[in-house]
Amino acid sequence: MASLLRDRPATTPAMLAALGDETLLRAALAFEAALARAEAAEGLIPATAAEAIAEVCAGAVFDIAELAEEAAHAGTLAIPLVARLRGLLAERDPAASQLVHKGATSQDLADTALMLQARAGSDLVLAQARNLTHALADLAETHAETPMLGRTLLQGALPITFGLKAAGWLVGVDGARRRFEREAAHALQLQLGGAAGTLAGLELAVTDRMAAQLGLKAPPLPWHANREGMAGLAAALAIQVGEVGKIARDLSLLAQNEVAEAFEPRVAGRGGSSAMAHKRNPTGCQVALSAATRAPGLVAGILAGLPQEHERGLGGWQAEAPALASLFELADGALTAITPVIQGLEVDTEAMARNLAAARVGHDVGQSVTLVRRALDHYRKEA
Amino acid sequence: MASLLRDRPATTPAMLAALGDETLLRAALAFEAALARAEAAEGLIPATAAEAIAEVCAGAVFDIAELAEEAAHAGTLAIPLVARLRGLLAERDPAASQLVHKGATSQDLADTALMLQARAGSDLVLAQARNLTHALADLAETHAETPMLGRTLLQGALPITFGLKAAGWLVGVDGARRRFEREAAHALQLQLGGAAGTLAGLELAVTDRMAAQLGLKAPPLPWHANREGMAGLAAALAIQVGEVGKIARDLSLLAQNEVAEAFEPRVAGRGGSSAMAHKRNPTGCQVALSAATRAPGLVAGILAGLPQEHERGLGGWQAEAPALASLFELADGALTAITPVIQGLEVDTEAMARNLAAARVGHDVGQSVTLVRRALDHYRKEA
Amino acid sequence: MASLLRDRPATTPAMLAALGDETLLRAALAFEAALARAEAAEGLIPATAAEAIAEVCAGAVFDIAELAEEAAHAGTLAIPLVARLRGLLAERDPAASQLVHKGATSQDLADTALMLQARAGSDLVLAQARNLTHALADLAETHAETPMLGRTLLQGALPITFGLKAAGWLVGVDGARRRFEREAAHALQLQLGGAAGTLAGLELAVTDRMAAQLGLKAPPLPWHANREGMAGLAAALAIQVGEVGKIARDLSLLAQNEVAEAFEPRVAGRGGSSAMAHKRNPTGCQVALSAATRAPGLVAGILAGLPQEHERGLGGWQAEAPALASLFELADGALTAITPVIQGLEVDTEAMARNLAAARVGHDVGQSVTLVRRALDHYRKEA
Amino acid sequence: MASLLRDRPATTPAMLAALGDETLLRAALAFEAALARAEAAEGLIPATAAEAIAEVCAGAVFDIAELAEEAAHAGTLAIPLVARLRGLLAERDPAASQLVHKGATSQDLADTALMLQARAGSDLVLAQARNLTHALADLAETHAETPMLGRTLLQGALPITFGLKAAGWLVGVDGARRRFEREAAHALQLQLGGAAGTLAGLELAVTDRMAAQLGLKAPPLPWHANREGMAGLAAALAIQVGEVGKIARDLSLLAQNEVAEAFEPRVAGRGGSSAMAHKRNPTGCQVALSAATRAPGLVAGILAGLPQEHERGLGGWQAEAPALASLFELADGALTAITPVIQGLEVDTEAMARNLAAARVGHDVGQSVTLVRRALDHYRKEA
Repeated sequence: MASLLRDRPATTPAMLAALGDETLLRAALAFEAALARAEAAEGLIPATAAEAIAEVCAGAVFDIAELAEEAAHAGTLAIPLVARLRGLLAERDPAASQLVHKGATSQDLADTALMLQARAGSDLVLAQARNLTHALADLAETHAETPMLGRTLLQGALPITFGLKAAGWLVGVDGARRRFEREAAHALQLQLGGAAGTLAGLELAVTDRMAAQLGLKAPPLPWHANREGMAGLAAALAIQVGEVGKIARDLSLLAQNEVAEAFEPRVAGRGGSSAMAHKRNPTGCQVALSAATRAPGLVAGILAGLPQEHERGLGGWQAEAPALASLFELADGALTAITPVIQGLEVDTEAMARNLAAARVGHDVGQSVTLVRRALDHYRKEA
Repeated sequence: MASLLRDRPATTPAMLAALGDETLLRAALAFEAALARAEAAEGLIPATAAEAIAEVCAGAVFDIAELAEEAAHAGTLAIPLVARLRGLLAERDPAASQLVHKGATSQDLADTALMLQARAGSDLVLAQARNLTHALADLAETHAETPMLGRTLLQGALPITFGLKAAGWLVGVDGARRRFEREAAHALQLQLGGAAGTLAGLELAVTDRMAAQLGLKAPPLPWHANREGMAGLAAALAIQVGEVGKIARDLSLLAQNEVAEAFEPRVAGRGGSSAMAHKRNPTGCQVALSAATRAPGLVAGILAGLPQEHERGLGGWQAEAPALASLFELADGALTAITPVIQGLEVDTEAMARNLAAARVGHDVGQSVTLVRRALDHYRKEA
Repeated sequence: MASLLRDRPATTPAMLAALGDETLLRAALAFEAALARAEAAEGLIPATAAEAIAEVCAGAVFDIAELAEEAAHAGTLAIPLVARLRGLLAERDPAASQLVHKGATSQDLADTALMLQARAGSDLVLAQARNLTHALADLAETHAETPMLGRTLLQGALPITFGLKAAGWLVGVDGARRRFEREAAHALQLQLGGAAGTLAGLELAVTDRMAAQLGLKAPPLPWHANREGMAGLAAALAIQVGEVGKIARDLSLLAQNEVAEAFEPRVAGRGGSSAMAHKRNPTGCQVALSAATRAPGLVAGILAGLPQEHERGLGGWQAEAPALASLFELADGALTAITPVIQGLEVDTEAMARNLAAARVGHDVGQSVTLVRRALDHYRKEA
Repeated sequence: MASLLRDRPATTPAMLAALGDETLLRAALAFEAALARAEAAEGLIPATAAEAIAEVCAGAVFDIAELAEEAAHAGTLAIPLVARLRGLLAERDPAASQLVHKGATSQDLADTALMLQARAGSDLVLAQARNLTHALADLAETHAETPMLGRTLLQGALPITFGLKAAGWLVGVDGARRRFEREAAHALQLQLGGAAGTLAGLELAVTDRMAAQLGLKAPPLPWHANREGMAGLAAALAIQVGEVGKIARDLSLLAQNEVAEAFEPRVAGRGGSSAMAHKRNPTGCQVALSAATRAPGLVAGILAGLPQEHERGLGGWQAEAPALASLFELADGALTAITPVIQGLEVDTEAMARNLAAARVGHDVGQSVTLVRRALDHYRKEA
């Protein structure tokens, strides 16, 4: 759904760029260039042809709207893209022209380009997740001994410390970050199999060369119809989003007028109301909670596509890229919205003390401080 | 996810336009103009101010990317939009400038603009669904007596007629169409409640006037935090998609080499393979099956947002617009992909006869013809 | 998932019974009896055979665990069930024995039995939904003029009345109830098509007779592979759940210690804590919110199954019954948990006034009272 | 949804037992016994009291239906269970009676009991997944060089070998198995935190002792409101199901009359039709495809619950256990249905050759054999 007005508030300009049309086109061209070079290195095509192809790929400027229109008609991006590259080469090097895309299939290009975009997206998500865990560790440290009311089933329960709450967020976000890192390392694979996934007309070494060149992993087999890596990546992104959503849920509850224990930092022009000048909305939390509402269903869509037909399926894998792109956007959007909130969080320790006293549940913070230490040690050891 | 290369193949240019940024901006401006005029009609603001506001709204040209950036920062589109309108009016009519958006809240604008886009989207979907049911009724009629093998649990079962299969598709698509029409009639409501949904500073008559002016229904109450209409609309779109997916599932199975009973019509440049010149891919089915894989999770995301907080929630409703937009795109994309497939379907009645004979399950088509008539009567009576 | 300890807290004993094994067995036997009688009425089998079959069905007592084991092995319940009925008739009326299940297929029995259970479930849900809307209308009436703080994005906004909040709940629940009633009327259809959905060896009149006898609608066509009615029913149940979840979200927020404006009624032994004697948990809200978390994904599962293969699919329809049963359980559980909460709600109008005053947003309740009247009129007119 | 007739066909008796009421009750009692013993070891309660508690737990026989009824009323299982244990101890050891459940909260018991059931479930799933990968490796080995038609977008493409198809299944199932093993190792944690997750009145050492005693991991912090481990486990189960579903999709397509290349083994009484004696349904595939349709939405429900409120949430975690139990059932059901199908698969290599020849796409199986070796090496290295 191509609406900047709807999409931009949910994510970052950096992620929109990483998953945007220009980057997708560049990734597709990088695929074709790497394929030609790897084939030349294996003696499957002349080195001069590979260089001509790579050069054309490097300099190609295509109209995105036209490409999209033709891709929609043809059923795949590869067809109009390859036709354009052949056209550009037709006069200059007719032999090279016929060697563009040699041995590859549309899905090789689509999957590899998606993985190149996913790699850029993963870098953004991981960097943001690390920023957030650092900020959470600092917050837990600072407030390790700050007493507040622990709340369960939305009722006052027993005293805790604010540091313990922050340590809980830390454990959740960091656990999700480590899962995501692992899933990305597993899933970010080159796709190359040719029409039926047999590498017909190619050599296995082409796969390894291309993978090295593009900075992706070489898979044990083409994975055209085996999408467990994709599914794992999608689930990991949604869990990352959900853990940020957990922070947002808590903060938005703490910021209620009657609770008033913690607030998003004031940022000029952010969180205002078009109707009420006095209001200060928890806009960072809004972004994260909205993301946490959208992400689960997107994962369900990718999981539902797993039982794909035969060597390359019909419809299942075509359904993944939009959902995966949305998940990357939501993860980056949620992380980027919450990290400065944690870094600049306004904590009212007096309100915490007041609400705790009003609940009449004592003031023994039990093992809270010890638990915060245990969680911070665990975090640092794992990091 | 703002990628034309990813979005266009899943839907139509008409739907992309209906849900695009330009249309959203026009809808938002129509909201502000209608609000001012309705307020003037009720004597809440001077008629001259209303005309000044409406004039500015009609002529306004804003940079979408800038607006999106500021909306993301502010947390809502209304804030930068209203600021711009006020800026345009500041010199010309300073009093009118202060009356822009009077009594309304950000979500009034966001929801109403979304409903205006949804109305345009609904018109497209309903027109396409009617085209498809006509085509299916014709197909059922034509092949009411064409014998073929009925297949259950993916095994040959007993003889049916191809018209009976088409009649089943018809009943499903038409049932879904009627549900969608009903849900659209229910959900396409104006939103106007002001900051807390009380119409503070306004009159109820403003709601009715605005609704009439914008061609939307006047709701019994502002529905900021009551999203059952939205949820019903989303579910109806997904069911429409699923019923088209059912046709695509069957057609793609009939088009298998070894079955070869029906084929998508040949269209130059469609369904080709970047690797195999001999291949003819069922591209219309691909679009529909991909849509049917994506739609269910999008509905789940909207349903998950129903328990919104208090008078206007945090995160839940902000999660809806992208999902609803995607559902409209998928519904129109699936319908538009399948309708010409049905209209131009290549049916090989000899192959049907051959496969039926090979299954050795007799050739009595039972009540198939009678059932086709019953279904067609039912369809015509309901229509 | 057959765990009473896990299932019972989420629903009612009445719904567990309606969807339980005994009822399923009775429904399956009612199908076979009605089939035999309808066939006899059309002269397809002797009247004496029909009576013998019906008598055996009425008196049959089978071991559920054994039946389940054999159904799992065979792949369908019909096979062991029909075998047992034939066994019971074998000596008494050998001819009748061979006429059990004549012309029907496994899915005819499975779908019809499910629809009979769904009808019982629908009656429960509709009765509870009506109880809840009555209670909400009373609450809205009573508190039409009770001022409280309106809250948006979890921040204090402007004054509303508590009656307006209740009227919002009413509109939501009642809209969902009307949708559900409509979808149930559409979906609760007899299934009868025989092996390939052609009524081979039967007459159309058998369908109409059986439908009348069992109190289900006669469908235009067998709907073995056309599940739009099922999908509509599932979505309507989830929307009903979500609207109850909306009430629970608000009430649980109002019951927070620091807000303390409304509380679930005290019921001996309910809402206690195994760790803290002082605590009073919002257990009704817990049931409703848990249901609202579970329901959306269950709908996604049913929607995902829509594109079923050919005349009767493989896996798709077998996935529906557990999800539909869960949705009925969640709807009844959520409604039954919240209705007495609304009926006995403890409202602290002084706390409402206090929190409103503390927010310093004035005390003009705007059009709240008028809006409550409008909503109540709308409700009564629709009812 | 407590229906054996509906649940048993989707899973195994072993898994039903592992997740059933008896096992849940035993797990809950094991929690209480381990808690008492760990507390005694830390000097928090007398050793004699611990032994009395443990003895009563070992011998307790409670009526499940009554317990379920009271748990539904109270809002948690712990309350009636602890009351019963105290009752049993009241005369025998009144001091011990008051020490049952000391320091723990309802969710400590609920989560730990669920994790004990999940551990049993995980053992079943992992054992079955290993059986399946062994069978798939054998199949890939056996048919490494058996030529067949590779099919893409449901159209004949190029030659592959059947071993390559099996190797693809192997890579998918084994990747899913390794993820699940990792997620289980991460998620199967003891829960112990007391009312607000602070271990108030306890010692950290109690956690470590209990974890060791019950064979669960000791968590860095109580995870009452941090459910990323749960979410990861759920997603991993669904991916495992989806990879089995992929096999089932392919096999059901190969078993179509017109393709006829592979068939489920004949098992007496399995796959029959209640309407057609000649038919042989792919019942193992049906179980797996039904599971793959249901699993994604169940994961979405668990992901949607991640943003839980404060120290212990309201509704979110109560929604998880039924979904997690269903996912375990579906995973075991799908694996157990498909493994014997692979082990006894009837492969018609002549039909494969015939269909390949008919497609006229050559007979060069390219690198298929080499790719099979690469996949098998990868599998054995990872194992």
